[in-house]
Amino acid sequence: MIDALPLEESAPAPGRNETLARAYADPDRAYELDRRHVFHSWSAQAQLDPMVVTRAEGSHVWDRHGNKLLDFTSQLVFTNLGHQHPRIVEAIRQQAADLCTVAPAYVNGARSEAARLIAKHTPGHLDRVLFTNGGADANEHAIRMARLHTGKHKVLSTYRSYHGGTQLAVNVTGDPRRWASDNGSTGTVHFFGPFLYRSAFHATTEAEECERALEHLEQVIALEGASTIAAIMLESIPGTAGIMLPPAGYLEGVRELCDRNGILLIADEVMAGFGRAGRWFAIEHAAGVVPDLLTFAKGVNSGYVPLGGVAISDEVYRTFADKAYPGGLTYSGHPLACAAVVATIETMEDEGIVERAARLGEDIFGPGLRDLAQRHEGIGEVRGTGAFWAIELVRDRATREPLAPYGQSSPEMGAILAACTRRGLLPFANFNRIHVVPPLTISDDEARTGLAILGDALTEASPAGGPSA
Amino acid sequence: MIDALPLEESAPAPGRNETLARAYADPDRAYELDRRHVFHSWSAQAQLDPMVVTRAEGSHVWDRHGNKLLDFTSQLVFTNLGHQHPRIVEAIRQQAADLCTVAPAYVNGARSEAARLIAKHTPGHLDRVLFTNGGADANEHAIRMARLHTGKHKVLSTYRSYHGGTQLAVNVTGDPRRWASDNGSTGTVHFFGPFLYRSAFHATTEAEECERALEHLEQVIALEGASTIAAIMLESIPGTAGIMLPPAGYLEGVRELCDRNGILLIADEVMAGFGRAGRWFAIEHAAGVVPDLLTFAKGVNSGYVPLGGVAISDEVYRTFADKAYPGGLTYSGHPLACAAVVATIETMEDEGIVERAARLGEDIFGPGLRDLAQRHEGIGEVRGTGAFWAIELVRDRATREPLAPYGQSSPEMGAILAACTRRGLLPFANFNRIHVVPPLTISDDEARTGLAILGDALTEASPAGGPSA
Repeated sequence: MIDALPLEESAPAPGRNETLARAYADPDRAYELDRRHVFHSWSAQAQLDPMVVTRAEGSHVWDRHGNKLLDFTSQLVFTNLGHQHPRIVEAIRQQAADLCTVAPAYVNGARSEAARLIAKHTPGHLDRVLFTNGGADANEHAIRMARLHTGKHKVLSTYRSYHGGTQLAVNVTGDPRRWASDNGSTGTVHFFGPFLYRSAFHATTEAEECERALEHLEQVIALEGASTIAAIMLESIPGTAGIMLPPAGYLEGVRELCDRNGILLIADEVMAGFGRAGRWFAIEHAAGVVPDLLTFAKGVNSGYVPLGGVAISDEVYRTFADKAYPGGLTYSGHPLACAAVVATIETMEDEGIVERAARLGEDIFGPGLRDLAQRHEGIGEVRGTGAFWAIELVRDRATREPLAPYGQSSPEMGAILAACTRRGLLPFANFNRIHVVPPLTISDDEARTGLAILGDALTEASPAGGPSA
Repeated sequence: MIDALPLEESAPAPGRNETLARAYADPDRAYELDRRHVFHSWSAQAQLDPMVVTRAEGSHVWDRHGNKLLDFTSQLVFTNLGHQHPRIVEAIRQQAADLCTVAPAYVNGARSEAARLIAKHTPGHLDRVLFTNGGADANEHAIRMARLHTGKHKVLSTYRSYHGGTQLAVNVTGDPRRWASDNGSTGTVHFFGPFLYRSAFHATTEAEECERALEHLEQVIALEGASTIAAIMLESIPGTAGIMLPPAGYLEGVRELCDRNGILLIADEVMAGFGRAGRWFAIEHAAGVVPDLLTFAKGVNSGYVPLGGVAISDEVYRTFADKAYPGGLTYSGHPLACAAVVATIETMEDEGIVERAARLGEDIFGPGLRDLAQRHEGIGEVRGTGAFWAIELVRDRATREPLAPYGQSSPEMGAILAACTRRGLLPFANFNRIHVVPPLTISDDEARTGLAILGDALTEASPAGGPSA
């Protein structure tokens, strides 16, 4: 009964778009137009001198001067399957030819299959998916669901966290990006999560940090009032804020505090999810802990098309079974983005990408970074899992004074990053930290090459000087 | 110096994605999976029975039973160039093969060209563009810019408006979608815009409505305190809320009030922009009125890939030239979405789409809908321009009692909409209104066919009965 999809067969083929072709052939023009017309995120516009990316493939990008850079950033930690993965590219091209878009009210096959595949992998089988455009609106909708489900308003989240750039999401955020938008009126309350290296609790072991962090959270709940708190929103492993793996027992303890107090647990898996942490979702490191709502974006389709979403428990779903959920968006479940989800998750399944990420952490990044730390006084701590690692750069290992102040960079950090780039490595930095967050598809050789470059850059530019050994 | 783009030449071609192919070949499966896993916007989930769209082309969509429907909705008023426009499809496929994505910090050629083309068409040449994922976050960022630029907090917007689904955007919104998320804490204040048919000012002419609406706004500014107000955010023509064209002089008056009081004017052109209203931007109907910030999404790339944005005046830009703008997002200026922008705007230029939309309104929709109103007692008012029209359905022309209460539907509205669908027309409805918002590329014959179906549906199902003439 369904007509054949017509485009490739019957429509007159339009020519290659010459403007786009020229945009890549003439990167100087692209640069000039960018400086004239493009307003960049989180930046002082007149002080930028951005790199032109003219090509990208696998774990590499190329700039306009022909330099090839090994991408240890996955851009903003989202190209989990690397650049231009042929299966994702082909799925997008196929979906574009078939059906670029329909409104969210209708059923679309790509969207249905994407929801099925996401639900299949969520911890505890969070079986319903609201699709959004990215992580920020995913977190906003998760909070709205929690508020309406519980009838309570406050949301607790940690300092040293990032949950997105829109007003509510950035107010839940616990890093300096919140400050300019914090008018003290969004019902958000911040507490301290566990972070032994810079403990807020004067703890000396992971077990002590865990116990004290849970005791602190219990006090915050008591003092804010459990009857006012809709949800606790946590990155299962905080990402840009520093990749602080929660100690054993912490997430279990948070789940128990939530249950005891009628509070929903929202796991923000925007950065840590979809294999990044060597599990489908990072929260699986705490066996048996199931969040009520789980938010995702980035790795869900390697960021090839904008998409995020909320995976929803049956209990929360039932609140909106016969009462309208008061939220939505024009591009919810966009078919092109969902096609990229299908290809991404199937590739991850077929190629054992999650297991590969776990092995990369165990065999290469963990040992390699710890080895670097032994050779460089300037590395205060190494932590991570899978393809999700951070090194703390410090002026002094004993005082742990960071190489850049909280919320800022420093000339010393800048010198190290410039040395990386000069040597062919694209680094990810935040304040005094360098994160090692390459595609999960990076080859072992590429991973080792990147670590070697990082070591050389530290030797060249770290104020702690050359190798300590 | 730049290497050739390699994918199509050298990579092994992956096969067609079988899951996606099956999703279209088996629409019953797509439906079952949707009901099992997809959480829909603005809906009571268990009460849905959504249509499966299996194919779409030009001004038509097909359902799984083989029914072909004329799309008088442009989905959610975004497929301005219709479905599967070959030039946009090809640009997406080309960009997917070349470079699906890079982080926003880098320069990307597609993004540069998209920003150039958008800036070229903005009123008063708002020369800088912050790209977002859609209209909601565009409005959130515009408000943040206005707050930081002015150092003031409040945002004024109208009742009967829609500005997006995230927390701040939905609080600026002036329709029932706001209510569930309005905790009275986002610094938003609502006033009445001009709407003669249901005047808040007891006016009897457009000139009087305009004068009184401006006087009202002036009072609201005085009583809220100009020193507290960062911006007035207005849809240049309110869209989903009812396509109320502002009377001559109104937007000029608002601009003057803004200038006099140090308030920024934010024009929300998410729905009305990019040709919908027979101009590149709807605000051009008020000659010479230039907003400080202009937000867009939908028509900018016909919604083929999620994208929105803010076009920024030089004055606001300068605030963030040497001080960081505290906002951003992972997918800002997504290359795939920007490639669709380039193809969309170039097609609009080459094919005279904006002029075509204006002519559709003047030659077909205006006369055709007024003719319908003469023949149907149930039509209380017809208003619109371009391909952007609303009819008010009423129980009684004298009392103007709407056919569905504000914020709700009614069995009578449901019957009319069902009659449209049964006759092969996909209608757009909001409360007691039907909006005529087809693709701007609709043929004259298709447009007339749609109006005829609408007339037949009213004859069949309107409680006001058959033709009044």
